Amino acid sequence: MELSVQQVAQLLDGKVDGDGSQLVNRLEKIEEATEGSIAFLANPKYTEYLYSTKASAIIVKSDLELRSQITPALIRVEDPYSSFSKLLEEYQKMMAVEKTGIEQPSFQAKSSQTGENVYLGAFSYLGENVKIGKGSKIYPNCFIGDNVEIGEGTILHAGVKVYANCKIGNHCKLHSGVVIGSEGFGYAPQPDGTFKAIPQTGNVILHDYVDIGANTVIDCATMGSTIINQGVKVDNLVQIAHNVEIGKNTAIASQAGISGSAKIGENVMIGGQAGITGHLSIANKVIIGPQSGVPKTIKEQGIFTGTPIMDHRDFLRVSIALRRLPELINRVTQLEKKS
Amino acid sequence: MELSVQQVAQLLDGKVDGDGSQLVNRLEKIEEATEGSIAFLANPKYTEYLYSTKASAIIVKSDLELRSQITPALIRVEDPYSSFSKLLEEYQKMMAVEKTGIEQPSFQAKSSQTGENVYLGAFSYLGENVKIGKGSKIYPNCFIGDNVEIGEGTILHAGVKVYANCKIGNHCKLHSGVVIGSEGFGYAPQPDGTFKAIPQTGNVILHDYVDIGANTVIDCATMGSTIINQGVKVDNLVQIAHNVEIGKNTAIASQAGISGSAKIGENVMIGGQAGITGHLSIANKVIIGPQSGVPKTIKEQGIFTGTPIMDHRDFLRVSIALRRLPELINRVTQLEKKS
Amino acid sequence: MELSVQQVAQLLDGKVDGDGSQLVNRLEKIEEATEGSIAFLANPKYTEYLYSTKASAIIVKSDLELRSQITPALIRVEDPYSSFSKLLEEYQKMMAVEKTGIEQPSFQAKSSQTGENVYLGAFSYLGENVKIGKGSKIYPNCFIGDNVEIGEGTILHAGVKVYANCKIGNHCKLHSGVVIGSEGFGYAPQPDGTFKAIPQTGNVILHDYVDIGANTVIDCATMGSTIINQGVKVDNLVQIAHNVEIGKNTAIASQAGISGSAKIGENVMIGGQAGITGHLSIANKVIIGPQSGVPKTIKEQGIFTGTPIMDHRDFLRVSIALRRLPELINRVTQLEKKS
Repeated sequence: MELSVQQVAQLLDGKVDGDGSQLVNRLEKIEEATEGSIAFLANPKYTEYLYSTKASAIIVKSDLELRSQITPALIRVEDPYSSFSKLLEEYQKMMAVEKTGIEQPSFQAKSSQTGENVYLGAFSYLGENVKIGKGSKIYPNCFIGDNVEIGEGTILHAGVKVYANCKIGNHCKLHSGVVIGSEGFGYAPQPDGTFKAIPQTGNVILHDYVDIGANTVIDCATMGSTIINQGVKVDNLVQIAHNVEIGKNTAIASQAGISGSAKIGENVMIGGQAGITGHLSIANKVIIGPQSGVPKTIKEQGIFTGTPIMDHRDFLRVSIALRRLPELINRVTQLEKKS
Repeated sequence: MELSVQQVAQLLDGKVDGDGSQLVNRLEKIEEATEGSIAFLANPKYTEYLYSTKASAIIVKSDLELRSQITPALIRVEDPYSSFSKLLEEYQKMMAVEKTGIEQPSFQAKSSQTGENVYLGAFSYLGENVKIGKGSKIYPNCFIGDNVEIGEGTILHAGVKVYANCKIGNHCKLHSGVVIGSEGFGYAPQPDGTFKAIPQTGNVILHDYVDIGANTVIDCATMGSTIINQGVKVDNLVQIAHNVEIGKNTAIASQAGISGSAKIGENVMIGGQAGITGHLSIANKVIIGPQSGVPKTIKEQGIFTGTPIMDHRDFLRVSIALRRLPELINRVTQLEKKS
Repeated sequence: MELSVQQVAQLLDGKVDGDGSQLVNRLEKIEEATEGSIAFLANPKYTEYLYSTKASAIIVKSDLELRSQITPALIRVEDPYSSFSKLLEEYQKMMAVEKTGIEQPSFQAKSSQTGENVYLGAFSYLGENVKIGKGSKIYPNCFIGDNVEIGEGTILHAGVKVYANCKIGNHCKLHSGVVIGSEGFGYAPQPDGTFKAIPQTGNVILHDYVDIGANTVIDCATMGSTIINQGVKVDNLVQIAHNVEIGKNTAIASQAGISGSAKIGENVMIGGQAGITGHLSIANKVIIGPQSGVPKTIKEQGIFTGTPIMDHRDFLRVSIALRRLPELINRVTQLEKKS
């Protein structure tokens, strides 16, 4: 891609301020940008970089006022961040190599079916009765167990494993190393101290527009389904246990863990390394801070942090007070001596 | 599977109360059950569902008394939970497609040996001198390094990786993405700030009836063996470092981490996201709460929680007291003013 | 390997004390050693084992004085730990089976290039324009995306996945299940509650001598590169998010997580299960304790622990004081009654 600043401005419905004939061919950050690149300024903290950046053009807010002369051309738009994001998308489309076709060797059980324009990478495995919808891409070294159904326009990156009987919707993206449908951690303790496995006969259902990060694991239900509703976004290395249900548009950051049969609401945000106990529910739009531990049901919207969680403002107050605790013990001892 | 309620009752040694001729063909939860299904009632909290469930039959305790007329048939048994679990097992057996035979392409070094009725999935790799015992199943995309021995009736789900020289017992189950025998994190800091790797020459030994959850990692020993004893159950995404030894029938929940050379006793339970420091030991039957941090040896049985751990009852008291800490500081300041 | 104690002593530049003609053929720990093995004594805590060990020879410090007669031969050296480590290395070299050549079936795009003495395991995949430097080893079931460059003498263990456009230096070691270059967790919330993915167009760069533990994930940058500098050592199941930069010779223990755009200094040590917030920086040589949470920039060297972190000594004091908090509340209540 090599475009003039003027061409980029047209693409973004923006107005050029400076030399629109310069050519740019890549996107960079304002603080690291080099000549021939285009950057953006959305966060006022970065304003100073306007005067030192080497970028050839900067996308800025339409009403930006300059303190002094600058080198790069400006592209003035309503919302610099959105415009830059749009540009990134266009860039990604231009760079993307569209994989299609069936690479060999790959393994397709005779009863499996693939739609139009499916990509099946080498060393990938489709079990009996597998169905892959049109335009979906299965990268190399994936395993798709018997009876799995995958919708249209879904991407499984290299090395994803999907156990038998699971269902994956349309326009989902599963990153490398994801495991869908492994058996839940359910054991009945026996009188002699050993464990007896409780059969895990259910599956996992991923609805449309679900993204799952690399090496995340979602266990199948004991009975019925572990359910990830539409638009849920899950980061890397997350654990989602058997019979969990995650509501629409909920986002779960890296290394968080959700125990068995927890019901998470819609538009919930769960911070990295947070842990959610099993058999509870979390209301819609709740925000759970990173590394927090949620021991019981949360019935109302709010921001919660800590182990066990408390209201986030209380957590901040307690965190500060905590440092004064050793001194406080001394103060109380002094008071006791006096009294 | 389609059975009459009467047939199910016979299987479970139970007594039918209601219409035993109805046909059932699946297992569901009492609160979600639909017509044609069978459910169970073990937890008294769910008793109300007896009067609203759509299930065709419910497995209940033999002495259950009904408050009013209900629709489903009852199957009265001694222990409804165990009976239901037995039914789940039967169900699983009927549903299971028994994989056997060698799929192609797969890779078997000439010196490798496989017993009777072994399943070797496509794109799986057996290195030199590998031995796989009879009835074991190696799903697709597994890697088994040189000299690895795997016992009888063991299952490696898709994409398991076992480094050279490790040993896996009989009737083990390793879920997708498990890594056994990777090199431990051992480095000697050098005067110039770089690290020199300490050679990791040992292996991992998994004894019989060990289950390992998806994407869990068990490192090999520096010398000798990292040892997972009989009947140990490990959940997903767990880290077990070099030279750890885990005692019989210990259960480790998801995302817990055990540092190098820790010796964990028998029948220990370790909660999710807990962290165990290296070079310590934990007594038999100890219970470690979720997200806890264990900094030193635990010599006696007990329940421990917190970072660093304390007695679980103390942890609960401290957790409640903590919320009052900011206010307590104010109270002490008031007292100081008065004194 | 079967060597006389005298031969081992020559290898280590040491002096034999006792019977140098005995044969030894393996390395063991002093407390577990059996006849025919060689062990070492570096930590004075283990001195007692000198008098009970079954090892045939022990590597000890040159000036060690014995309290009484012992059975094993001694090999006296300057630094027993280093000597033993050297011996481990020699042992590892002798035991290592050098994999070379291209196993079949494997997949090499026509435009991919491999240097001399490369090992490419069965079921491994090299995309378009991939370059693998001489002596590097790609174990079975690896996926190397388009345009990836891998240097010389680097090892990718079985099942590593590297997304397109990433760069891996010389003498790196990536353990099984590692994912390099997956898309970062970047989403723009939309007014209707859904998320729009922010295109992730960058890559990951691993410089020379970087080791990455099993099932660890490193996301690609939104733009530019996620950078892991020379000599960095990362343990298993670690999360490194998009646009992170890790300074030279930093060590990161298992299950730690580093959020997007964090800049970690050189020679930093990050404990297991610690969490680092995004968009901050950490000074050189900082030490972060296990399970700690770092919410903001650390400008100076120090040891920090807790969630949120405090000076490590303060953390220890606070941890002890915390147990006294419920009692302290009672004491304050008593004082209030009196006043």
